[in-house]
Amino acid sequence: MPINYPNGNHYNFKNKSVKSIGQTVNYAKRGMSLEEEINESNEYYLSRGIAVIHKKPTPVQLVKVDYPKRSAAVIKEAYFRKASTTDYNGVYKGYYLDFDAKETKNKTSFPLYNFHEHQINHLKACIAQGGICFAFLKFTSLNELYLLPATKLFEYWDQQDTSKKSITLKEIKEFGYSLTYQFNPVIPYLDAVDKIIENSIH
Amino acid sequence: MPINYPNGNHYNFKNKSVKSIGQTVNYAKRGMSLEEEINESNEYYLSRGIAVIHKKPTPVQLVKVDYPKRSAAVIKEAYFRKASTTDYNGVYKGYYLDFDAKETKNKTSFPLYNFHEHQINHLKACIAQGGICFAFLKFTSLNELYLLPATKLFEYWDQQDTSKKSITLKEIKEFGYSLTYQFNPVIPYLDAVDKIIENSIH
Repeated sequence: MPINYPNGNHYNFKNKSVKSIGQTVNYAKRGMSLEEEINESNEYYLSRGIAVIHKKPTPVQLVKVDYPKRSAAVIKEAYFRKASTTDYNGVYKGYYLDFDAKETKNKTSFPLYNFHEHQINHLKACIAQGGICFAFLKFTSLNELYLLPATKLFEYWDQQDTSKKSITLKEIKEFGYSLTYQFNPVIPYLDAVDKIIENSIH
Repeated sequence: MPINYPNGNHYNFKNKSVKSIGQTVNYAKRGMSLEEEINESNEYYLSRGIAVIHKKPTPVQLVKVDYPKRSAAVIKEAYFRKASTTDYNGVYKGYYLDFDAKETKNKTSFPLYNFHEHQINHLKACIAQGGICFAFLKFTSLNELYLLPATKLFEYWDQQDTSKKSITLKEIKEFGYSLTYQFNPVIPYLDAVDKIIENSIH
């Protein structure tokens, strides 16, 4: 009998670590990518009526599409296009949220080359419209995840030609929010968003 | 010499009607689809720092992707997937906007079958989070375009099993906003959004 999450998603045993007495469960190590972790968190938030946040589909440039009789159209030739925005956006408590998620294998700093100019420009445009924008920064070797407000990211981005080209883990810990993996949602990132909202009001 | 729009987009003479004395220019008849009209309006709003609204890419289910040496990945087999959300969203004056655009050849009413259950559910979830949601309804035969607030759309959607399965043009005129095509932006729909915001505050 298949076992499903409350939201109807299929529960995949193979990807899950089994909890036993005295063992620390590390939810981040269930074989999920950061993208899957965020998607699953968003599904949780959506299913509970807490927030509506989705990953945007990867844009594709279609070149050849076949339309066979009596069956679905088949894309026969297409290429990946660069997105003009970030990957995630949505609405939470009346606020527009917009963010991207990046990973590094580094252990002491996060290289800025992980971001692209158009993503930064998009985040700046969203901030100018009153959106709440940020980035997930994951140190995969350390299995540590942080949420850095976009305004802070801009400071480092805008000085990289004259100064350093990365953000140290120490700085991320100082200016960002540490996100601890848990069961549901896997990444409780709206707790950090609440703090950003609080700070922006007071 | 190529002539471009202020936003850098290429100006395509072939698609444009030429204005001459005594002739009414109908900007909607330049061969643009409703999607192109909305995208161009969004580009205008973005380039002027007025709003950040994008169409989401069409989701595609990848089956076979080739990774040739020294050149870009080629998608060799893929299928169109149903989107789980609406097509457009973004941020304007701190508000989250979310909408879809539909067309009918009918002249007196807009059939509700143009909408899908998951789109309505998505709009309802966004409204619950304080988003501003609506639909573009275009009567292509009449070349008339309206913006209908989602809350009004829900009323008709929710009663369709026991009552009528369409919204009359008269009702759309009464409860929606007529959008008049102009030069830039082609569809000045944020004027109607301003009215929705005003009505929601007062």
